[in-house]
Order: sequence, then structure tokens, then C-alpha cells
Amino acid sequence: MKYSFRNDYSSICHKKVLEKLIECQNEQNIGYGEDLHTLNAKRMIQEKIKNKSDVYFLTGGTQTNMTVISHILKPYEAVIACETGHINVHETGAIEGRGHKVLTHKSLNGKLDPLMVKEILIKHTDYHMVKPKMIYISNTTEIGSVYSLEELKALYKCAHDNDLYLFLDGARLASALAASDIDYPDYAKYTDVFYIGGTKNGSYIGEAVVINNKDLAKEFQFSIKHSGAMLAKGFVASIPYEVLMEGNLYKEIGEKENECANYITKELKSLGFKFYSDSITNQIFVIVSNELKDYILKEYDFEVWDHINESEVAIRFVTSFTTTLDICKEFIEYIKAF
Amino acid sequence: MKYSFRNDYSSICHKKVLEKLIECQNEQNIGYGEDLHTLNAKRMIQEKIKNKSDVYFLTGGTQTNMTVISHILKPYEAVIACETGHINVHETGAIEGRGHKVLTHKSLNGKLDPLMVKEILIKHTDYHMVKPKMIYISNTTEIGSVYSLEELKALYKCAHDNDLYLFLDGARLASALAASDIDYPDYAKYTDVFYIGGTKNGSYIGEAVVINNKDLAKEFQFSIKHSGAMLAKGFVASIPYEVLMEGNLYKEIGEKENECANYITKELKSLGFKFYSDSITNQIFVIVSNELKDYILKEYDFEVWDHINESEVAIRFVTSFTTTLDICKEFIEYIKAF
Amino acid sequence: MKYSFRNDYSSICHKKVLEKLIECQNEQNIGYGEDLHTLNAKRMIQEKIKNKSDVYFLTGGTQTNMTVISHILKPYEAVIACETGHINVHETGAIEGRGHKVLTHKSLNGKLDPLMVKEILIKHTDYHMVKPKMIYISNTTEIGSVYSLEELKALYKCAHDNDLYLFLDGARLASALAASDIDYPDYAKYTDVFYIGGTKNGSYIGEAVVINNKDLAKEFQFSIKHSGAMLAKGFVASIPYEVLMEGNLYKEIGEKENECANYITKELKSLGFKFYSDSITNQIFVIVSNELKDYILKEYDFEVWDHINESEVAIRFVTSFTTTLDICKEFIEYIKAF
Amino acid sequence: MKYSFRNDYSSICHKKVLEKLIECQNEQNIGYGEDLHTLNAKRMIQEKIKNKSDVYFLTGGTQTNMTVISHILKPYEAVIACETGHINVHETGAIEGRGHKVLTHKSLNGKLDPLMVKEILIKHTDYHMVKPKMIYISNTTEIGSVYSLEELKALYKCAHDNDLYLFLDGARLASALAASDIDYPDYAKYTDVFYIGGTKNGSYIGEAVVINNKDLAKEFQFSIKHSGAMLAKGFVASIPYEVLMEGNLYKEIGEKENECANYITKELKSLGFKFYSDSITNQIFVIVSNELKDYILKEYDFEVWDHINESEVAIRFVTSFTTTLDICKEFIEYIKAF
Repeated sequence: MKYSFRNDYSSICHKKVLEKLIECQNEQNIGYGEDLHTLNAKRMIQEKIKNKSDVYFLTGGTQTNMTVISHILKPYEAVIACETGHINVHETGAIEGRGHKVLTHKSLNGKLDPLMVKEILIKHTDYHMVKPKMIYISNTTEIGSVYSLEELKALYKCAHDNDLYLFLDGARLASALAASDIDYPDYAKYTDVFYIGGTKNGSYIGEAVVINNKDLAKEFQFSIKHSGAMLAKGFVASIPYEVLMEGNLYKEIGEKENECANYITKELKSLGFKFYSDSITNQIFVIVSNELKDYILKEYDFEVWDHINESEVAIRFVTSFTTTLDICKEFIEYIKAF
Repeated sequence: MKYSFRNDYSSICHKKVLEKLIECQNEQNIGYGEDLHTLNAKRMIQEKIKNKSDVYFLTGGTQTNMTVISHILKPYEAVIACETGHINVHETGAIEGRGHKVLTHKSLNGKLDPLMVKEILIKHTDYHMVKPKMIYISNTTEIGSVYSLEELKALYKCAHDNDLYLFLDGARLASALAASDIDYPDYAKYTDVFYIGGTKNGSYIGEAVVINNKDLAKEFQFSIKHSGAMLAKGFVASIPYEVLMEGNLYKEIGEKENECANYITKELKSLGFKFYSDSITNQIFVIVSNELKDYILKEYDFEVWDHINESEVAIRFVTSFTTTLDICKEFIEYIKAF
Repeated sequence: MKYSFRNDYSSICHKKVLEKLIECQNEQNIGYGEDLHTLNAKRMIQEKIKNKSDVYFLTGGTQTNMTVISHILKPYEAVIACETGHINVHETGAIEGRGHKVLTHKSLNGKLDPLMVKEILIKHTDYHMVKPKMIYISNTTEIGSVYSLEELKALYKCAHDNDLYLFLDGARLASALAASDIDYPDYAKYTDVFYIGGTKNGSYIGEAVVINNKDLAKEFQFSIKHSGAMLAKGFVASIPYEVLMEGNLYKEIGEKENECANYITKELKSLGFKFYSDSITNQIFVIVSNELKDYILKEYDFEVWDHINESEVAIRFVTSFTTTLDICKEFIEYIKAF
Repeated sequence: MKYSFRNDYSSICHKKVLEKLIECQNEQNIGYGEDLHTLNAKRMIQEKIKNKSDVYFLTGGTQTNMTVISHILKPYEAVIACETGHINVHETGAIEGRGHKVLTHKSLNGKLDPLMVKEILIKHTDYHMVKPKMIYISNTTEIGSVYSLEELKALYKCAHDNDLYLFLDGARLASALAASDIDYPDYAKYTDVFYIGGTKNGSYIGEAVVINNKDLAKEFQFSIKHSGAMLAKGFVASIPYEVLMEGNLYKEIGEKENECANYITKELKSLGFKFYSDSITNQIFVIVSNELKDYILKEYDFEVWDHINESEVAIRFVTSFTTTLDICKEFIEYIKAF
């Protein structure tokens, strides 16, 4: 196999992260995220977002969603998400496992808007139904789209006008930062909680949860431990952020991924391919014939996303911090040779 | 500060683990623990335990306990533990958070025995009370003691005579392997589920869950994901086990830790110190005067475990894979200079 | 006000039930459903369904759904329901509160069919998603429709072909028994669990849960108590069933309700009214002008179900064991006088 | 059998309650506790307690405990109780089932005091352990003892000094009102939440939850429905309170029960019997020989509470609203005839 475009979590970590581990290997640090690396990574994130938000370092996306949501909601409260939202589809019921209903709305582009939220609110008016209390969105979304700053502001306003919290899943925030006009400080201003994904953006594990709403930060460490999400070696999750937050590395990883993905998209478009969804980020959803699919599989890995008809499928290519333009060019040549 | 004896999770990882990461850094692997490193680590563990048990790699101890217990028990079933058991005291209610009562028995040495189990069973006879269904023990225990093979066998027999499962928390299994006559294959024979702790024995994260009872292995991956315990980069948790299971490294780490701890114990005894608990493993609980405590703190870190009286405290020293005999000798000299 | 058609739970109970309470008032009975009334009511139900199923008497519908579903499903398993299903909409997240996702399918007539079930199954194929394990249906449904015996058989076959359980909510089973060709023994043959609703069919409280699948009956009393659903005075919930199961009383209550509802429907149809849903059972959903709605409200109570447009609403009339044809005739005259 | 002293929930209800049901049988009432009977019963309770607390009518004790506790506590918060507390022993893990640990303290007389609470607080100081947030007590206690007003005040002060809530289980409040100097208004002043038990004090079902702390009352109806504790026929649970709160009936029931129990106690004491616990309320715990136990069983029912030694057991007699002094005298004569 020449290369895997299957996902953005197939390699251990960015080489600078590994160098940092080597550099720190002989240290002794305090446990449970009370060490100096964690403090420093927190400070670096606060500088990026220009806000004194609380920051905690968890391990993975589902764990983070489940910990944040169960920390904030009362037993009878629910979270609003897109039908395609990660918490609705791909977390094996982890949110319901902590007691909360996920209320969903169909969305063609994987994004929620205030109108959708209001449609849900209007149906939930008394104690016979769950009480919607949080909006969950992802940036980039599960199907590669991105929110604009204006869209984010509108959702945040909608949330606060309706006594809801806005929680943003940033598992792929690097790609979103590179593709949209929402910058670090906007995430602090226009969400109650968000996270800066590590696992899919150069770290081996780790999601940095940023709690902008002070009311929600109280006793969050209890919820982390209660959810089985607290690492004894907390510094193992925060050290990578000292690297990723240094200069512009995190965003640059996203830019590079997007550049590679956009190159592939452009070339495939010029070859006449149809796309399953519009994406300017690091996930590409393209429709191919079964024959081409099999041909590609000989040398490249990817995920089959959906069955279109008897002769065609939608497949997903994902670029990552290890993808280079050269890899992409070779890939396009390979496609052309079909 | 000269050295921290505060715990066995203050350093990133064993240098051989780090070397392995460097060696594998350019690979692309499949996600969610379906990769070749995970397969290989699983195979290496199966060879050690001489059994074809299922093996899964989770992140930390509380997470593992919560995932295993909630996978196995029905909503109204309970787990039996020592009053000092980690799941009872130091997991912020993670087990109850998944719906299960922890039934406890006092134990001076941190170990459960069949008599204690039966005392609990005899009180739980009808549907007005929870149904005890699992025994939870730790080896080494939370206060440094170890089970003998005979003790383990007796508990396993008691469990199966009474329709209970036996689950063994091996967060500090390296030290237990080195200190007791229970070898790898015994853990496969005389428990339903156990785990080979990584975090406290040379890895940066990771606990290898070994499911010996085939009935309990079914659909365990659903429970892992449902509990927020599934890593996208599953190989990050299993690669260290390829190192630790190579030759005798894992057990050697325990032997080294125990040797260092036993040296300190012997020296302190010869200096006339009293001990808070008997331990031949890598945790030492010693009683010191407040003055000595303050003196030690100037150069060495440790945990204050309990207040004995107005002038004395019990403090805990823990040795780890980074501890050397030289460090211990220097420490004893430092004590003598008081 | 002349009469309330608001629901079928506005009066305490059928007069024969009250007579039975008076008759038994000086007895002393054993607690927790181990008394002779409960035994007798269970036996009477077993005779009706011609099966030795286990029978337990709970208090209300949401409680019963939550107790049964959480008893049967593992943490990562989900239940399939109509989008309009009571467990999905009107239980304030009680099912999710016990940890389980409700997977839904749109249905115009409030009923599930095997095709809908299969559409959901086909999307849930691996451990990243919940595992569908149960089908939940209601008879009569939440919008007044009823299943035919053929439809029930098809769903039961679909369930068992796909390793799912079929659970039937019989909160309004009296009306269903009277309106469909499914008789008592069919409910025992073609469901794993169902219940014979008391609250909406002549009792003051009570739902009789019938567990046909022996595997699911084990330790159900633990789940009842664990769910807060066990009455100290268990006989208070079972005595009414001694009355309702005597002769054909339960089904006759349904027949009477349906007769009254069908009379109203027929008359309203002849007056040219449009209906919101087809119903031959005790719930009628009719579309009226805002003016007529206000006129009716002066003398009759009902529930506003949905807003159709600026000038019309859908309203629901429900008949109950207290409704008589005379009441209905007077009501129709009142409508005609508008 | 002459009479059952097995418990105080063996008869349907007080005859005045049944008369009230007969009186109301032809009414139509609004559902879900929004009816006039519920409003009236609430008003009558507010008059008794001289406070405008919120009042809700639930079905039974375990359900009430589980609903109140899960409404108030965050996921990582715990409730403090006596080791003998009902929530700790006899609710089949219903509290843990909603996610919360029960922290217990041994108590010889079944009562908690501030010292016991502080001992627990002092051990729970960081996020590695659950956060104690509520004190749970019962009056009368599970072993028949009662709190004095001074004791209640001290616990309430202790609770509020330590940021804890005080919740009082009043399943047997009638007997407590009759036996102690704590009057209705004191329960409103010195608890955050308490309940006036119906099931064991003259009603067929029902516990009236009184929420004195306004912060805790918010959205309680959501928690009721979410816990499966909301009756469609809410008035069925509140109508009995219109009877029990009329004049002094509720307290008189307790006085009568206590009088009967105290008569038996006095007589047994004069006959030289030893007691298992001191009780001036409606539960008597007496130690008898196995032979006497068998002799009594021929004509009277009771519960065997504990095994004392090879020849003696502790047995429990409970008086209820159906017990009369004549029954007790006949019983004592029967004992004397042994």
C-alpha cells in the first residue's frame, strides 16, 4: 500500500511532539494534571484564545463529549444536535449512557442553525418531555463542512436567548481554524465550552477542553474522575499541547491538511467526479464507481461512506499531518491511470 | 529536590517504550485497536498467560474498573470490595455513576478473603437488597500487600461456588508478580477478568484488560466505546505492551521496584522506625515524626497517608521504574543525617 | 362543564373496583406483591392469555416502560420505536435516564413495520454505534391506530429473525382488544413482554406486566425494586385486576369506549369534519376551526393536539369507562347547535 | 391467624380514606397532579407546616428517595446515611442506580449526629473522592428510634455549616410526630426536603414530598416524570391526604400505633423480656427463644429481624392504624399462656 487516506488518526504523532517527549523523559512530574506542563499548556491556550478560561486535558472525543455533557446537564435535560452529530451516531450511546437524550434535527450540510434549534424548542414546552438545555455542534462537522463566524455568533445568540449552553466539539479544530474565519478568541467568546482536538491533529492522544462559561467550570475535576477520564500521568496529555500551541503549529497542521485535501478535490473535479458533500476541509467525500473503488484499494486505503446505487459508492479520503502534496500528486496520477 | 517517592506515575515512560515509539513513528495503522501492534501485544500477553483470553487496551485504572464492571453487572447487581478498595474510595463514585453499589468489608491488610465474602452474601438474600455478583480485588493492594496463590485460588473457588465473578485490578501487577507466587498463567486460571497495569509500570498510559471468562468477552468493544474508553489511536495504548511483554521486562520492572522498596524498608527498620502496614512491594508506609517529615520534604517528595497522633504521621514512599538503589542509598543517608 | 373528553384517566376507577376495595378493607395481606390477591390476579391473567407467563403489577406506564427496558437491555443496547412512541416523546427522557438510546423511525400511522426496523438495523452494524436489541410498540398507538394480528406476527417474526425482543405497551390495551383481531393469547404468543394497562382502563393505578419470554423474567423483582416501582402494598395494584379480569369486563370497557368514540366519529364525519388521523379506538383526532374550539370549550374539555393553520387546530377527544352514548349524543347536539 | 404484626402496610387504607374515594368516584379531574384535590391537599399540608413549601405526591418510599436525591445531586455528589438507612440497605441499589454513592456511618441507635457527619466530611476532601452533599435521615428510624427537636436542629445546622442539604425520610412520620417533640412546622424549618409518608400511615399509596428549600423545588416535576414517578391520576395519591390532614387524624394514627406498641413493650418488659433496640414508636424489636417464636407464629405474624444466638432470635412487631388495644391485650394473654 502506498498511503492510507482512511482517517487522520493513523500515525502516532507529529515528530515535534515525539521530540518533546524525548526531551522530558527523565523528569518527575506531579500527577492528575497538577504538573507544570499542564499549567504551561493551559497558559499557552489562554494566550491563543485571549481569555482566562479553564482548560483540562482529556483523552479522546467520545470521552470528552460524555464528560462535558454529563457535567453540565441535569438528569432530565437534553442536548440538541444534528442527526449526523458524532454524539448521536458514533458514540455507542455514551451520552444516553450518562442519562441524557440527544434531540436531533436533519441537516443537509451537517450544521445546525437557530431555526432548527427553535423548531425543537417549540415542541418541548412542559415536564412531560425532556428539557433542551444545550446545543452541540462540531467544527469541522462530521461531513467536512465548516461554520462561519457569523453562523457561530447566531447560534451563540440563539443559545443564550433561550437559556441553552453552546458546546463545540473541536476534534478537527485545526482544519476548521484553517478553513473558516473563526479564530481562537472567537471560540472563547461564542461558545460556553469547546475543545481543541489533539488526537486528530498531531498528538497521540488528547483533547483540550476549554470552559469559557465560569459557572460550568466549577468542580469539573470531579466530573473528569467520575467519568474515568482522569489520567494519573496528566502531563502525558498536556505535553503535546505545549508543542502544538507553540507559534502557529496547530493551525499550520490544519492548513497543510486542507491544502492537500483541496488539491485532491480540485483535481478530481477537473476529472469530472461528483461529490457526496461540499468540503473545503480535510475530509473529502467523493462518488466513485465500484470498479474504481476496487482499483484504488489496491494501493490506497479509505473509508466507504455510503452506498449510492448499484454501481456507485461514496468514499471518504482524509488528509492528516503526515500527508504531503507529493503523496496527493502521486495519488491523482494513480487515479488518472485507471 | 533530589527525588520524588510520591508515586509510581511521575515519569513519562520506560526508555525502551519511547524507543519503540520513535521506531514506529512513520507507520500508518488502523484505528480503534484493530491494528497489528494491538494484535501482536495481545498475542504476547496470551503467550505469557498461556491462555487464549481476549485482551483489550484501555487508558487508566478508574476507566478500566468502570468499563469492566458496568459491562458485566445487571443494574441491580453489586460488586464486593475491601473498604480500602480503589473502586470504593478513590474513583469519585465512578462505579456508582454506572449504577452499581460497592458492598464493602473492613480488612486490616487490604485483602478480601472468602469469609468476608460470605458475611456479605449472607446478608443479601432477597430482592429488597442488591444482588452481589462480583468480587473486586487489587494485586498489589492499595496498601501494598499481596495475595498468595493459595489465597487467590480460595477466592476464585468462593466466587464460583457462589455464582460470583472474580475481577482483579492489576494497576500494580508488575510489583505483585515480583513479590508473590502468583505467575501470569495463574491470573488467567483463577480470575474471570484481570488487568496488566501499564500506567504505573513503565508505560505512559494503558491497562491491558484480560477477559478469561469467555461469556464476559462478548461485545466488550461496545462497552469500551460506550464508556468513552476507546482510543481512535488504539495502537498508542498497545505499543508499550509489545515492549513490556518482551522477555521479562514487565516483571523485572516490578522486581527492581520491590528491591529498592525492600532496601529502604530494611534500613528504616534497622533505624527503629515503625510501619503503618506490612509491605514487601513498591509502596512503603512508615510512621515518622512531624519534624522528620518536614526535614525529608526539603529534598524528597512523598504522600502523607494518615495522621497517627499529634506528633506523628504515616507517610508513603513509592518506588518506580526510575528508582535505583543508588537513589535509595542516598535517601537513607539523608535520613540518617537528621 | 358538561363533560371532559380530555383523557381516559380523569375518574378514580370503575365502580366494581371500588366495591372490591370496600369488600377487602379489613383484610391483612402480605407486602410487596406476595399476597393472595396478586397471586389470584396473576392466575386470572394467565387464564386469559392461555400461558404460564410471569405477571407483575406496577403503577404507571412510564415506570413500566423504564423498568422493563432497563431490566432487559445491556448498557450499550438500544430500543427501536416510532418517532411518536410514548417512550420517545412523553417520558421526559426516562429511558435515556436509565442509559438507553431510543432509535426512531418516522411513521404516518403511529405503527412500526418490519421494513422500518430493518432500515434501522442496516445502519447499526458495528461497535461504534448502539446495538438495537428491542422493538417497542404500543397498542393502541399514541395516535389511536391499532395493529392487526398479521402485523403483530410479522413484527414478532422480524424481531426474532434479528435477535431482537418485542415489547408491547398496552396502556390502552382494552380499547385495542375491542378494536383489533388480536386476542389475549396472541399477546402471549407474539410478544416477549407486554402489559395490560389498568390506569386508563378502569383502575385507579396499575399496569400488569406479562413476561412471556422466560429468559427475561429472571430476577425481575430486583429490577422493580431497583426502579422504585415496588409497592409495599402490592395488593393495591393487583386487586383491581381481579375485577377487570372477571368475565369480560376489561374488554367490555374497551368496547364501550370504542362504541362511544365511533359514534362521535361517524356523526362528525356526517357533519363534514376532517380528521387528523384515522382511529377506530377511543381517541379521536379531529380538525376544527378556532371558533368552534372555543365554543366547545365552554362545556366540554379536550386536548389541543396540533396547530394546523391560522384558523384551524387538531383536537383530541378521548372516551373512557365513564363515557355513555347519552353523553356523546348530547355532545353532538351541542356541536350541531354551533 | 389472629392478627399480623408483620408490618404497617398490610391493610388497604383507613376507612375514612375509602369513604372519601366513594364520595369522589363520579368526578372528573385533571391529570398529573394539576387537579383541585392535589391543590387542596397541598394547601392543607402548608397550613400544618406553617410554610409555603412546594408539595408533590409520589407513590412509595424508595421511589421518593430516588427521585428527590437524583433531582438534587450532581453526578459526582454523594449522600450520607446511617449504615442501617433504608437507602443503604433496602432499596436494591436504587440510589446507586441513579448514579450516587451512599456514604455510611455506623450508628447503634439508627440515628446520625453531627460528629458522624464530620468524620465523613473530613475524609472527603478532594476530587479523587465523591463530594458529600446531602444528609439523609429517617424519622422514625429503621429501628424504631426517634430524633428529638434538638437533635434535628443540630443536624440541620451541621448541614448548612458544611454546604450540605438535609433530607428527611418520613415513611413513618405519623409515629414520629406522636413520639417526639418535633412538630409539623419544625420539619419545614429544619430540613431542606422531607416527606409525610402515606403508605404506612393510613393511605393505600402515597408519600407527600415537601420541598422547603426553594432552590431545590425548581423543575421538580421534570424529575418526577423522568423517574417514572408521575401518576396520570395524580389525585389518587393526593385525595388520601385531604383526609389524613383533616383535623389531627394523621398524628392520631401515630399516637394510636405508639400507644399499642408501648403497651406491648411495657407488658413484655414486666414479663422479663430483653429488647433488641429501644423504641417508643410503632416498631418493637424483642428477643425471644426459638420455641416462643414458633408458638407465637401459630396465631400472630411478625418479622424475624436478626439471629442472636443458637436459641434466641430478635423479632419485630409493628402496630398500625388497624391495631387496637384489645388486639394487644389478647396478644399479651397469648404470650402469657406459653
